[in-house]
Amino acid sequence: MADDHGVTPQSEDFSAWYNELVAKAQLVDRGPAKGTMVIRPYGYRLWELLQGELDRRIKDTGHENAYFPLLIPESYLRREAQHVEGFSPELAVVTHAGGKELEEPLVVRPTSETVIGEMMARWISSHRDLPLLLNQWANVVRWELRPRMFLRTTEFLWQEGHTAHADAADAMRETMLALDLYTEVARDIAAIPVVAGEKTAGERFAGAVRTFTIEGMMRDGKALQAGTSHYMGTNFAAAFDIHYTSAAGRLELCHTTSWGMSTRMIGGVIMTHGDDKGLVLPPRLAPYQVVIVPIGRGEQGERTLAAARDLAARLTAAGVRAHVDDRAQLSPGFRFNDWELRGVPIRLELGPRDLESDTVVMARRLGEEGKQSLPLAAVPASMPGILAEFQEFLLRRATAFRDERTTPVGTWESFTAAVGSGWALALHCGKPSCEDDIKARAAATPRCVPLDGAAETGTCVRCGEPSAYGKRVVFGRSY
Amino acid sequence: MADDHGVTPQSEDFSAWYNELVAKAQLVDRGPAKGTMVIRPYGYRLWELLQGELDRRIKDTGHENAYFPLLIPESYLRREAQHVEGFSPELAVVTHAGGKELEEPLVVRPTSETVIGEMMARWISSHRDLPLLLNQWANVVRWELRPRMFLRTTEFLWQEGHTAHADAADAMRETMLALDLYTEVARDIAAIPVVAGEKTAGERFAGAVRTFTIEGMMRDGKALQAGTSHYMGTNFAAAFDIHYTSAAGRLELCHTTSWGMSTRMIGGVIMTHGDDKGLVLPPRLAPYQVVIVPIGRGEQGERTLAAARDLAARLTAAGVRAHVDDRAQLSPGFRFNDWELRGVPIRLELGPRDLESDTVVMARRLGEEGKQSLPLAAVPASMPGILAEFQEFLLRRATAFRDERTTPVGTWESFTAAVGSGWALALHCGKPSCEDDIKARAAATPRCVPLDGAAETGTCVRCGEPSAYGKRVVFGRSY
Repeated sequence: MADDHGVTPQSEDFSAWYNELVAKAQLVDRGPAKGTMVIRPYGYRLWELLQGELDRRIKDTGHENAYFPLLIPESYLRREAQHVEGFSPELAVVTHAGGKELEEPLVVRPTSETVIGEMMARWISSHRDLPLLLNQWANVVRWELRPRMFLRTTEFLWQEGHTAHADAADAMRETMLALDLYTEVARDIAAIPVVAGEKTAGERFAGAVRTFTIEGMMRDGKALQAGTSHYMGTNFAAAFDIHYTSAAGRLELCHTTSWGMSTRMIGGVIMTHGDDKGLVLPPRLAPYQVVIVPIGRGEQGERTLAAARDLAARLTAAGVRAHVDDRAQLSPGFRFNDWELRGVPIRLELGPRDLESDTVVMARRLGEEGKQSLPLAAVPASMPGILAEFQEFLLRRATAFRDERTTPVGTWESFTAAVGSGWALALHCGKPSCEDDIKARAAATPRCVPLDGAAETGTCVRCGEPSAYGKRVVFGRSY
Repeated sequence: MADDHGVTPQSEDFSAWYNELVAKAQLVDRGPAKGTMVIRPYGYRLWELLQGELDRRIKDTGHENAYFPLLIPESYLRREAQHVEGFSPELAVVTHAGGKELEEPLVVRPTSETVIGEMMARWISSHRDLPLLLNQWANVVRWELRPRMFLRTTEFLWQEGHTAHADAADAMRETMLALDLYTEVARDIAAIPVVAGEKTAGERFAGAVRTFTIEGMMRDGKALQAGTSHYMGTNFAAAFDIHYTSAAGRLELCHTTSWGMSTRMIGGVIMTHGDDKGLVLPPRLAPYQVVIVPIGRGEQGERTLAAARDLAARLTAAGVRAHVDDRAQLSPGFRFNDWELRGVPIRLELGPRDLESDTVVMARRLGEEGKQSLPLAAVPASMPGILAEFQEFLLRRATAFRDERTTPVGTWESFTAAVGSGWALALHCGKPSCEDDIKARAAATPRCVPLDGAAETGTCVRCGEPSAYGKRVVFGRSY
């Protein structure tokens, strides 16, 4: 069997590297309809693990899951003017059902603000009903002309939080809480050191008053928006009549929020940690944290296979996701390459000589140390610590990479140089026309105004007008 | 505040009882598009708990979750003749997307055999790739003319297992394994004593060679099909070219299966256990297993509320899903009725006098015992046992109900009497025309040929021809 584990090097063509890798690592396949993807078991398990971490945090902060219909009357979207303008070009529309033409077409939800707004209006009457904290795990459809697996697909999976509050202050607290959850999951689970900040007016969600984002730097220096949280003000409440009676007996409009994180995050994991050998998965998201490869033929092979299974059982009992690669028909080298391609954090090789000496050979997917021989009996107890170290190593590595490629700039020349390989931190006038000019000339956009940026004012890096925002803005090319 | 907990009695109008209850218990609301439902947090939590139980069993038996696209080219459905015939009348069709008319319309999946078949054909080449054991959690759409919340809705949530095997024997083992999982989940988790059996030819899934089902008896005596498992033979493999090379080097067609359980099960739980006061939830599916109602006003109210919260924390630590009803503005009686309506298995009432004597009053949602006073300190340790007993009680009660209303019949008169209030066990000739005749005259259909039925032959209860199947068939009216 030919070894088909090679992918185009990142340095040669990052985009080809990505496209080849997601297919060869068996994360996805192409769906039959334009821009759709099939998420294969290895990719879906990654999503389930991410989902579990995020769902727990969403519930722990008082939100409840619910489910709203996929099909939404077209007229609902028109009730919020900016919303329909933003989403119209991307809609898939059901015009026929049950063998007949529908009186009113139904859109396949691109997001659920409208139908949830309609329900909030039914369910909320008193201040005692607030805050209403809902979340939904669902599929959404946005017609995609330039699809890219995980990053931009016609259908994707996500969670969308939707909440209603008595006033702006409470809704803004919620908006920032959701952003904090996303930052934590990205950093602690996906090992992506995202920058959290606010979008400029031109990059806001259709219908939002303020939009916040977490942005990760990919290994080609581009930015990936990995989660967003929106304060809607009373825009949707006004469009859908979401009112409540206050303690003082007055009828008031609610303030709403929405926030989402999607299967796009998996693309972020791939492009933050992967290398020319393939995926590198953070242990907390790896479907298999440890793969054991038994080596040897015939009777020897049977003995190492039995020992591998025993070790896997002890690792499982220690809370480690372990897998035995029992494909004896494939060479050890082929299997090693296969698990490197698929990004397994720790590989354990178990040959007849290892078994004789009660040891096992450990190879980390990344890092300075070469292979190490470990006493077999000690492996289950030490593995959680080894995995935690690997998780931290990935976060340190990604943080260093991001910091090296993030440059405070004061001139246009240094700006264009910085966005060629990473991010520029620049003062900006805040004018949409100047943003457009920058986009046209440098293919870069303001990714966010970082929450933790130091106070600074001066002149716009592009047009020289006085700076806005009171701090530097992160600019970069993006997905 | 008026007490709005009343529902029409079951005996008066079962259907009105059901429709009022699902709304008043806040399980669901109507969606804007015809026949769609919104699953509210209380209903969705029920589904999540069921999902967790089923998902664990599906994974433990070697299946992997994956995700396939929602939108399927219309031509895919036409490849399997029976399949398209069965589903055509129920399809929702996307004809426009991204602002343009599509060259080929896309159907919103009514089920995923076709798109998964296409992928299986890509992924399977050798006998080493078999069996391929996949499962998907997803929404599906089947246009519904007579919608009923949970039971028949235009969109519903389900899992669909899809597997491919080397031969008929292995595929049949899988078909029965899935049926066993469903039987176990229905019985042990939902406390529904289902009858497992095979569908007659006229009731088979569109495209299947054999269809198996689990059927539960609702409290109006009707049958609810609560899960099905299908052996497809090589029908889909032939339509989608799902081949493998055998160990002997020959190209062979795969044998496939599919099996599904849906949000319909929640309707089954409601109609198996509910009564005129409202829902009765089996503890293993109850969002709140125990609700604590603190009683008293002013300072006394504060003390009982604090004690209720402390007790809830200790119950949570003991693995019990506990909730404190802190709605002090509502009377105790209103709150008691509310939790009876919502089916909480155990209610704990905590008033000032209980607190003085370090006791709490326990009321079971159903059963012979009246209220009981329990020592407060002992409640957390004893609650798991009390809940397990209540779970068993519900299963025993439902089993007795089903058995009382299941009648072996030998004459047409006794047949029509039996299906008026429950199920008839009858010998049948197996002819579709005779099934149709029975349906027209008694509004009853063969629910299944039970797997564990005793061997028996004789003459058809309707037409007098020799019986088929070698055992009695379960007949009943159904949802």
